Amino acid sequence: MESARLLKTHKTFEGQTQFWEHDSIQTKTKMKFSTFMPSVKPRGCVIWLSGLTCTDENFITKAGAQKYLQQHGLMVLCPDTSPRGLNLPQEHEHWDFGSGAGFYVDATTSGYQDHYRMESYVCNEVHSLIQEQFGVAQDKISLMGHSMGGHGALVLALRHPEKFQSASAFSPIVHPSECPWGQKAFAGYLGADKSQWCSYDTTELIKLGKKHPRPFLVDQGLQDEFLDKQLLTDHLEQACEKSGQKCLIHRREGYDHSYYFIASFIESHIRFHAEYL
Amino acid sequence: MESARLLKTHKTFEGQTQFWEHDSIQTKTKMKFSTFMPSVKPRGCVIWLSGLTCTDENFITKAGAQKYLQQHGLMVLCPDTSPRGLNLPQEHEHWDFGSGAGFYVDATTSGYQDHYRMESYVCNEVHSLIQEQFGVAQDKISLMGHSMGGHGALVLALRHPEKFQSASAFSPIVHPSECPWGQKAFAGYLGADKSQWCSYDTTELIKLGKKHPRPFLVDQGLQDEFLDKQLLTDHLEQACEKSGQKCLIHRREGYDHSYYFIASFIESHIRFHAEYL
Repeated sequence: MESARLLKTHKTFEGQTQFWEHDSIQTKTKMKFSTFMPSVKPRGCVIWLSGLTCTDENFITKAGAQKYLQQHGLMVLCPDTSPRGLNLPQEHEHWDFGSGAGFYVDATTSGYQDHYRMESYVCNEVHSLIQEQFGVAQDKISLMGHSMGGHGALVLALRHPEKFQSASAFSPIVHPSECPWGQKAFAGYLGADKSQWCSYDTTELIKLGKKHPRPFLVDQGLQDEFLDKQLLTDHLEQACEKSGQKCLIHRREGYDHSYYFIASFIESHIRFHAEYL
Repeated sequence: MESARLLKTHKTFEGQTQFWEHDSIQTKTKMKFSTFMPSVKPRGCVIWLSGLTCTDENFITKAGAQKYLQQHGLMVLCPDTSPRGLNLPQEHEHWDFGSGAGFYVDATTSGYQDHYRMESYVCNEVHSLIQEQFGVAQDKISLMGHSMGGHGALVLALRHPEKFQSASAFSPIVHPSECPWGQKAFAGYLGADKSQWCSYDTTELIKLGKKHPRPFLVDQGLQDEFLDKQLLTDHLEQACEKSGQKCLIHRREGYDHSYYFIASFIESHIRFHAEYL
């Protein structure tokens, strides 16, 4: 695998906030990502998966995570949310489908199946790159994310528990087969046959008995404008209770879906991952 | 004075990050600003003045200040960096002059003198609004800023020491009469007669014997790409040493001009202002 190319670096809390580009084997496009490297050799890496419309920049500029990553000696890597620079059917017509909205699945539909391989991109290509380029051991990698990326963190941890030590999420889409965002994305990436959808659905996978050995950590704002129709936190809680998957759900009075909410609680998520890395 | 209208609110670290709009008497335009209000009644307010090209949004989304403002019970108010929505000669042709580049002066040149009154906007209009709308006492208001806004914080504190308890700056333009950014701005806003420029020049004012009763706090990154040609930190240091103005200058190895630098040291600036508020 070719190394990623460093585009920019900014000293931050003694470490370095960095922006990178590489030629992805999985998406067959150039992909950008950002990192924070602490000033000491990182003892682990948390992959941050962003939400709809985001790029590799949102988390690293807005979440205020660098201070706590430096304190715990952890790196973070933030992939982009989809391939870029393509021109597939419908790819750029909706903010919640196509570019900026990859949903962390390997697509099976025509056109998308050749490039929208975000599961393999994160779980194989980025996972390898973290080891090869940044020197982190394969058993010291975890996942966290927000909204669509919270779905990504939980569902990829359930599908690949051997690859990710722990997973946490802010405002995750926990039951995509049952909400408009998920239904639109899954129809477009996986096709109309709904029986294919459950393999990328956190709540459905947990109902089917899939488990991660570590508890999940979830923070959800109660003023979140998407809670009732899109996020459906209760569905996750009920599935976990039935199946025995441990899940720490913190419902936060007054907080919304924004990065101001993420910034307010990111310290506790990094502390959570530090325990397992 | 009419109250400002609340546009958006986001709970953040128990307090509220808010975005506002009002009809400014000084600029004769609509002006936007952002605030953070702690969850307790604020015991003081720090006005943040942003740099070239910035709006009221940069600091409040990127600096990670809310946590420390909440801890100290302080509010912050971030004005925009110029009037908007006008169409004055040359106003939108350069990123370092006109819109986004008001330089915190009251302009005297044709066209600009009617709207670009950023000194009076900050020192009179915003200063009053902080008292009337947000209930902060008139002797509990301070200034901080970055780059052009660092110049604004220091120069307005020197010109109005009775209005601002303390002033601090990241990467300030300390000697605008002697650097390209300042020369361009002052020529455009104050005219070609350079004898008028020194009254808005921190280094020149200090040389002339102007003082603020409290020490200034300055942080300057040593990898800042603008240090040698635009910022000229040494000039401030020399003027302060000669005149007796106290100034704590921290030169930070490896840090650049970005908000990653600001985020890394904002806690110490808020602690500094909390001592005087």
